[in-house]
Amino acid sequence: MKTTLVATLALASFIAPQETAKPAPEIEGYRQTVRDILSEALVNGESYQKLSELVEVAPHRLSGSPGAAAAVEWARQAMLEDGLENVRLEPCMVTHWERGETERLRVVAPPELAGLELPILALGGSIATPEHGLIAEVVEVQNFDELKELGDAANGKIVFFNRPMDATLLSTFPAYGGAVGQRVNGAREASRAGGVAALVRSMTTRLDDFPHTGGMRYAEGIAKIPTAAVSTKGAELISDLLEKGETVKLHLELDCKSFEPAPSFNVVGEWVGREKPEEIVVLGGHLDSWDVGQGAHDDGGPCCQTIEAVRILKTLGLRPRRTLRVVLFMNEENGLGGAKAYYNDHKDEMDKHVFAVESDSGAFTPRGFTSNAGPEAMAILRDIAMLFEGTGGERVLEGGGGADVSPMKQSGVVVGSYLPDSQRYFDLHHSERDTIDQISPREIELGAGLIAALVYVIADLEETLPRNAPPE
Amino acid sequence: MKTTLVATLALASFIAPQETAKPAPEIEGYRQTVRDILSEALVNGESYQKLSELVEVAPHRLSGSPGAAAAVEWARQAMLEDGLENVRLEPCMVTHWERGETERLRVVAPPELAGLELPILALGGSIATPEHGLIAEVVEVQNFDELKELGDAANGKIVFFNRPMDATLLSTFPAYGGAVGQRVNGAREASRAGGVAALVRSMTTRLDDFPHTGGMRYAEGIAKIPTAAVSTKGAELISDLLEKGETVKLHLELDCKSFEPAPSFNVVGEWVGREKPEEIVVLGGHLDSWDVGQGAHDDGGPCCQTIEAVRILKTLGLRPRRTLRVVLFMNEENGLGGAKAYYNDHKDEMDKHVFAVESDSGAFTPRGFTSNAGPEAMAILRDIAMLFEGTGGERVLEGGGGADVSPMKQSGVVVGSYLPDSQRYFDLHHSERDTIDQISPREIELGAGLIAALVYVIADLEETLPRNAPPE
Repeated sequence: MKTTLVATLALASFIAPQETAKPAPEIEGYRQTVRDILSEALVNGESYQKLSELVEVAPHRLSGSPGAAAAVEWARQAMLEDGLENVRLEPCMVTHWERGETERLRVVAPPELAGLELPILALGGSIATPEHGLIAEVVEVQNFDELKELGDAANGKIVFFNRPMDATLLSTFPAYGGAVGQRVNGAREASRAGGVAALVRSMTTRLDDFPHTGGMRYAEGIAKIPTAAVSTKGAELISDLLEKGETVKLHLELDCKSFEPAPSFNVVGEWVGREKPEEIVVLGGHLDSWDVGQGAHDDGGPCCQTIEAVRILKTLGLRPRRTLRVVLFMNEENGLGGAKAYYNDHKDEMDKHVFAVESDSGAFTPRGFTSNAGPEAMAILRDIAMLFEGTGGERVLEGGGGADVSPMKQSGVVVGSYLPDSQRYFDLHHSERDTIDQISPREIELGAGLIAALVYVIADLEETLPRNAPPE
Repeated sequence: MKTTLVATLALASFIAPQETAKPAPEIEGYRQTVRDILSEALVNGESYQKLSELVEVAPHRLSGSPGAAAAVEWARQAMLEDGLENVRLEPCMVTHWERGETERLRVVAPPELAGLELPILALGGSIATPEHGLIAEVVEVQNFDELKELGDAANGKIVFFNRPMDATLLSTFPAYGGAVGQRVNGAREASRAGGVAALVRSMTTRLDDFPHTGGMRYAEGIAKIPTAAVSTKGAELISDLLEKGETVKLHLELDCKSFEPAPSFNVVGEWVGREKPEEIVVLGGHLDSWDVGQGAHDDGGPCCQTIEAVRILKTLGLRPRRTLRVVLFMNEENGLGGAKAYYNDHKDEMDKHVFAVESDSGAFTPRGFTSNAGPEAMAILRDIAMLFEGTGGERVLEGGGGADVSPMKQSGVVVGSYLPDSQRYFDLHHSERDTIDQISPREIELGAGLIAALVYVIADLEETLPRNAPPE
């Protein structure tokens, strides 16, 4: 046993050291080019500089706001300055919701805590409370099944959804996915159960005083009730009181408001292909953000990475066979107006969309990419990713694209996402903390380099990346 | 050609998907235990809490300072609180150098910039300038060869070493390694060339106003001259002036001072093995830090990770076959007094030291480990690291251990380092910016989990990890 363990392992280490696989020769031929792209990104990268301009000009970029309009104009100019071609604004209609001036959650009971304010943010799309707010008792649930089991007990109450993100999951994205349903559909379900408001624990594994906003949806035929996210420390406080058997009454005031859909734009620029200009590789992010913090990681930084990707290629004199098209979508956060408009307005050329990658998971150190590519295209993507050795971003995992490129899937377009390290993302996401001081210059530039390298090689390969079969 | 690329790749992806290798069965048997360790770290981890206490009690922990003494006592109590066994202070002698009150670098010429202050930090070990400082012309070099070529031209000058870290390197550690010689030996070489002071560009790829201190050495028989690091923006300013042909004169004032070596301690605690208590796996970091910032990443956070690693195992009821010994070394930054004392005082049991891992590369998201293990032991370490799938820390690269465990190599002890992502490290390292707000709770806890898992499996395997042949 002893000898066997050592002997087997030692042998294995000679037969199969950690890095053996080599990409196909055509792809291997891009190794030095990829290295040059990464070096340009790391030495002369301008993603961070671009982002610092964007968050100065338009720190808040919620769809329909003056900030969003400023961001559109900034992005147009940034693309022109970097020499992108066919720079244009493509119209779309977007959700228009405003937070208003007042949002406050105060303890009414137990009496010894009366007046204590708990940090909240209204969820995007929420209606306001009555003018002086509403006061109601709180009932806590972990999920919609528990809520149903309560029966009448939720009637007239503030329903408090307190299921935390599962911190044991090694990537925080599935942890978010496992909890965010409370935020998106909590008001609908609370209303269905007779609740007067829905309060949701903020989507972060960190215990702190920062509430995290985000999108929510009402449903036809179910009364709209106001809804907000409370900080995780606030959530723990409420939960602890309830666990001790206290009656918890809260006073919630929100004066947020929805308006008619507003006109806005996706910002588009290209680097036209030298041989097959009609074939298109899309790279992009979303230009809108929530109205708190600066949307530095979500999704200002990643937008800047995609403009920067073209600057890098242009600087190095690398014009690929096919066209690269940077699309900065509007309204990802609360409506996907930009994504829908892009898909509808470009339906005729969807069969020429070879690949569409979105960067919308933060501007952290690289882990790789995800893609919905079928086996043939996935093998090519994985071969390309082997060229990223040493960056940390050598993997292509099965997964979706970002929300904005997802509509293209119905036309068989292979989509993907840039995948940075996820550990810090939800500590910042949709909160006051998502600011440029949370961005590492090297991390954002390295990510821009990887995105540039990936889209360049895909757009330059002799053979067009195989499409997916459109879903039935 | 077309068909071939796709066909070859598609085939390859079926034969060899990205993750195929499985560890040897004995190691595979630890998979669930490793998962439990990581979950405990991520859900109940206390590294961050420990660090917040440490930086409160002892933000500055330079060897020989009251802060270092406070850190020693804090660590002793932290180990006792977590129930470590055989907690003790092991004496060592350490370097004692103090920064003093004044450190200032002012432009004297060109006259239009006269009076401008450039941000500096004296290098640890530097002598002071004369009382009112020294004024001299600056001569810039990129390396010691250039300095030699200058001949007499460096005579009476401030020699300015301005070779930047190579930003194109994907890991910042080799980039640091390629530049730090200027800092360590710059004063010696400048003095040899007739210089009156040595000024060195701060060791970071970031362009900002934060100087980065660090260790330096004088040499026997060569006159000592004062030496300091200037911020990268300061370095660029000087360099730009020189490039324009300006004569640059600077006024440097330092009143730092070296004292007699001082008594101090390594802090040691154990988790005694259940079957082979005499066989030892060391894990540790260094408790001293520079006297700026809080040494949160270097190396307070990592020290806390190693205490925390034992807490995790203890909480889960995991007592390995062999003894785990946490050693928090003193004086890594400017003398290695603790490392030398540990090695000398434990020489008799070096043949029972199975593995020694140091965490001294920051508390960032995991990339893996490095080790100097020979092929047999390396194969075992790599099999263990396969259990870390999904953490980002699945690799064991060839490399050294940390500075504090390195003396053990001469006795054939296999050493290693925890390897976190390196992108942000040198933006903070040895500067005012190395503070706890730069630590991500999930990243530090995940790292503690990986360290706990690695040392647990090594200490628990039936077979003792094969030793290295001692170097000749």
